[in-house]
Amino acid sequence: MCQLLGMNCNVPTDICFSFEGFSARGGKTDEHRDGWGIAFFEGLGCRTFLDVKPSIASPIAEVVRRYPIHSTHVIAHIRKATQGEIALENCHPFQRELWGRYWVFAHNGNLANFDPQPVEFYQAVGQTDSEKAFCLILNTLRAAFPDGKPALENLYPVLRTITHTIAQQGVFNYLLSDGDYFFAHCSTKLCYIVRQAPFAAAHLIDQDVTVDFQELTKPSDRVAIIATIPLTDNEA
Amino acid sequence: MCQLLGMNCNVPTDICFSFEGFSARGGKTDEHRDGWGIAFFEGLGCRTFLDVKPSIASPIAEVVRRYPIHSTHVIAHIRKATQGEIALENCHPFQRELWGRYWVFAHNGNLANFDPQPVEFYQAVGQTDSEKAFCLILNTLRAAFPDGKPALENLYPVLRTITHTIAQQGVFNYLLSDGDYFFAHCSTKLCYIVRQAPFAAAHLIDQDVTVDFQELTKPSDRVAIIATIPLTDNEA
Repeated sequence: MCQLLGMNCNVPTDICFSFEGFSARGGKTDEHRDGWGIAFFEGLGCRTFLDVKPSIASPIAEVVRRYPIHSTHVIAHIRKATQGEIALENCHPFQRELWGRYWVFAHNGNLANFDPQPVEFYQAVGQTDSEKAFCLILNTLRAAFPDGKPALENLYPVLRTITHTIAQQGVFNYLLSDGDYFFAHCSTKLCYIVRQAPFAAAHLIDQDVTVDFQELTKPSDRVAIIATIPLTDNEA
Repeated sequence: MCQLLGMNCNVPTDICFSFEGFSARGGKTDEHRDGWGIAFFEGLGCRTFLDVKPSIASPIAEVVRRYPIHSTHVIAHIRKATQGEIALENCHPFQRELWGRYWVFAHNGNLANFDPQPVEFYQAVGQTDSEKAFCLILNTLRAAFPDGKPALENLYPVLRTITHTIAQQGVFNYLLSDGDYFFAHCSTKLCYIVRQAPFAAAHLIDQDVTVDFQELTKPSDRVAIIATIPLTDNEA
């Protein structure tokens, strides 16, 4: 299995603190050594960092831990391979363009015997069940709304239906975003915290690091963190 | 305008030497300060690094200069904005998936009044003429070969025709690859060198750095470097 980390904020925020703890699980405090990735939306743009090295040993992960990239929508993943070899094309998050926006997806779980046919517009490049599920979601959304991106209340029921269909194949926790919407689906394990005023100090589980968010935030800031397993030991 | 750098090799090779000189043109030895990007194919996978900072000042470019990523197909770009603001979504190279492969594109030039209609499957996310041209190329290839990736001799005439059509709009030097094929189109300025045995030392123009490739290569190695302006001053 794998682990997910997501962040959704009302103002661009860096994820250095959370990623410090999360990336330790890629080979130091946990066993997710088979690659990692993180995608940052910045306006319409999106940049994704991927590496097949364990996140704890990756020079690129070191840059992500140290270089504050400010973003409102972030999706990260550390991999313990189930389907598909350890290879760059099997590292999450996956990215495609739909309706003139980038869409990014990462999955925790395992979908047994998942091989949707026919293959439509979006095709998987790698061998994971996860990328196939992402392509099926996008193919479904595109078919339902061929003329462009719909309003959330129209998109949501279609996404929910295809999500429940795929979830019948196995464990299907995922994060999905286009830099505007941010969807999280929990089939077995996913938790979240919303940090907002009054801010307090937070202490990581995986590294002995504490950050006092009161010193770093404005009263109107609001940050949601979504993770497979909590990253801090002094927050609810 | 912008500058392009491409590398195509018969064995995975790092681009650290060439990128050292190339990235200096992003704010030190030349004026291409409006963002940069580089895409590396590794097997079926592809990873793209993008930054709106000048490549000379970008912490991510620093990692690319220092951390040897071995790849057979590399496309890099430093930007001097003509169309589209300085923003992540306007940084090259652009990436899309077609026929279950990632395709990557970077452009040097300017296509005046270029706004292809109707918008088909692939849509630009940013505002550049370059990304619109890339989408038009992929839409054309997809329409011509809906059943999957064709052989090179079938693909090439279609690519050549759409390239010449687009090139009527202005300067259209580009690099395009899916990690298997590697296409370079020169409308005004693009040069190349093929390094092969017997290897010799090469000295950068933009930095006082020399590498003796004889010490780093095997006799069967073959590396093509393609660039807007030569990167070395002692090679033909």
